[in-house]
Formats: sequence, C-alpha cells, structure tokens
Amino acid sequence: MGDNPLSIHIVNKMGYEEFIKCFGNVVEHCSLCAAAVWRERPFRDAENMASCFGDFIDRLPISGKEGILRLHPDLAGRLAQAGQLTSESTREQASAGLNTMTEEERQRMANLNKKYKHKFGFPFVICARENKKDAILRGLEERLENAPQTEAITGANEVKKICRLRLLDLVRPDSQLNSPL
Amino acid sequence: MGDNPLSIHIVNKMGYEEFIKCFGNVVEHCSLCAAAVWRERPFRDAENMASCFGDFIDRLPISGKEGILRLHPDLAGRLAQAGQLTSESTREQASAGLNTMTEEERQRMANLNKKYKHKFGFPFVICARENKKDAILRGLEERLENAPQTEAITGANEVKKICRLRLLDLVRPDSQLNSPL
Repeated sequence: MGDNPLSIHIVNKMGYEEFIKCFGNVVEHCSLCAAAVWRERPFRDAENMASCFGDFIDRLPISGKEGILRLHPDLAGRLAQAGQLTSESTREQASAGLNTMTEEERQRMANLNKKYKHKFGFPFVICARENKKDAILRGLEERLENAPQTEAITGANEVKKICRLRLLDLVRPDSQLNSPL
Repeated sequence: MGDNPLSIHIVNKMGYEEFIKCFGNVVEHCSLCAAAVWRERPFRDAENMASCFGDFIDRLPISGKEGILRLHPDLAGRLAQAGQLTSESTREQASAGLNTMTEEERQRMANLNKKYKHKFGFPFVICARENKKDAILRGLEERLENAPQTEAITGANEVKKICRLRLLDLVRPDSQLNSPL
C-alpha cells in the first residue's frame, strides 16, 4: 500500500491528465494502457480498475502483448545494477530478494535471461512480489521450454498481476463506489 | 527529411533498445507501437515500416485507438504555448502555420478543440503537415459532426499519416533492402 492511497471517488473525478500521471505506469512504461482504460470510468474499486486494465491487455494482438513485455526491464539486469529502474520496479525486485543475490545467482539469472530473450524476442517478466528469487529462477528455466505464442500470453498474465498490485498500492481497497467516503 | 536519415540496412541491424530510441515517438508518446513492430524486422524500406505501424494501429481495439489519440497534445493548445511539445509536434504544428495564428484564430481553435474533446473524450488529431490552419479549422468543424466510433478510426488514420511522415524523416526513402548501400 502506498503512503497516500486514493479513494475511488477521487479517482473517478480525475481529469485525463491527472489520471495518466497517477496510473500511467501501472503497466511498466506503457501509458497507452491507462490512456485506453480511462474511458471505462466510473470504476467500482481498485479490483474493478485491475479488471479493466487486464481486459485491455487481453484484447491486444500478440504483437501488442510482446510489445508490452519488451517495455519491461530485465530482472536483476543492467538497469537494476545501474539504479535506473522505475521506483515501482525497484521496490518489486527488492521484495523478491533480487537485490541481494550472490554473484553466482546473478550470473545464473543473467544467463537464463539471455537465453530467454534470444528465444522469444522479449524479456522474462514475472510478478516479483508474488515470488522469491528461487521461484523466479525456477520459473525462468521452466518457461524457457514454452512455445513462443504461449509464452507471450504467460508473460502478459504476469504483467496483469503486477498491474493489479500496483493499483492496490495506489487506490484504497476499502473505498467502493456508493460506500461512504 | 531529418539531418541524418538512416539506411534501412542500419535500421534492420538495430538492437531493440536502439530501435525504440529512434522510433519510440513516431507515434506520439506511444512507444508500445515501436515495441510491437520491432518483431517485423527486416523491413524493406520506410514505407514498409509505415505499413507495419499502420497495421498495428488498425488491429488495436477501439479503446486502444482512443488511447493513442489521448496521448496526443491539443493542436495549438496549452503545451504548444508553453513550448512543451515534443520536437516532432513543434515542427509539425509550425508547418501548418499554427504557431502564427491570430488571437482570434487561436480562440476559435481552442473553443472547437474543447467541444471536440467534450464530445469524444479524446483530442482532435490531424496530420498538420498535410494541412494548413484553415483546412484544420474546417476539419475540426466537420469532424465534430461524426459519430464517436467513426471518429476514433478517423483520428487513428491521421495518426498513421503523421507516423509515416515521421518515418520518412528518419529513414532514407531510397535505401531499399537488397539495393546497394
């Protein structure tokens, strides 16, 4: 949960520019998602917002799902080491313990990421807040075996989980439309 | 044409990060388009790239087309007056004479833009390089009469024209694949 989560009433009153400033990065570096979902107001609550984002991602052609994955940084990759991740990604990767890997673990992840990207043409994306580093390394190995078309959908489903948790950080979960403020 | 247009051979050798740096804004503020289109390499030429971007935009659901329109600035709007447009938009709006409107013209455009946004929920987008300010003002008045669903598609088609001209600026038109460098 963020420091000052918003009530859904406030969200529903936002103009487009404020909305995109707040929610433009719930899908990493892909403000088109928030720009598209804005038309769905009023939202019932954070879960309803997450469904709207999820539906939009589901309706993208495979090339669009792949594009969303490409806009994501490598897990524990170059940007992380240079401290250049978005603040959301920094927190998420830390919660999985990716910022405290041994040199050996880091090397193993870098090698697997490289194989994955070579095979699929997009980086491995997993909801880091729902996994610890061992599960992530296992997931990378397992998902490397998938068919490309399947894997774009698997990746997009992880993007939806990340997006949902980011929304739950930003919007008070108890503030439903029609309930008292 | 830009100062240093690229040969298509160079474009086809680009890694993803370089590609997105070069082409991430050929659709204004919507790097997802370039991220999705990257999978289509190798491209034959700039026109072929433009087709790939156009196809991706066409395949987006209406909410996605609307989202792309929302990522665009108002013509001769607040950002233009504050000098905060992207460099591409600044050049394009100037080429239509939008930077030399009289106060009366500016006011008329602002009023029409406001009505348009109120009706459709996204800003009026037109390929400024293919129109002068009088044609743009006429277009605004005419398109205000359209049905919302039609208008999202009309707007998206203008985005495709803008995108094509931006690509022709960036990539040498004479450099076709299989022709000498």
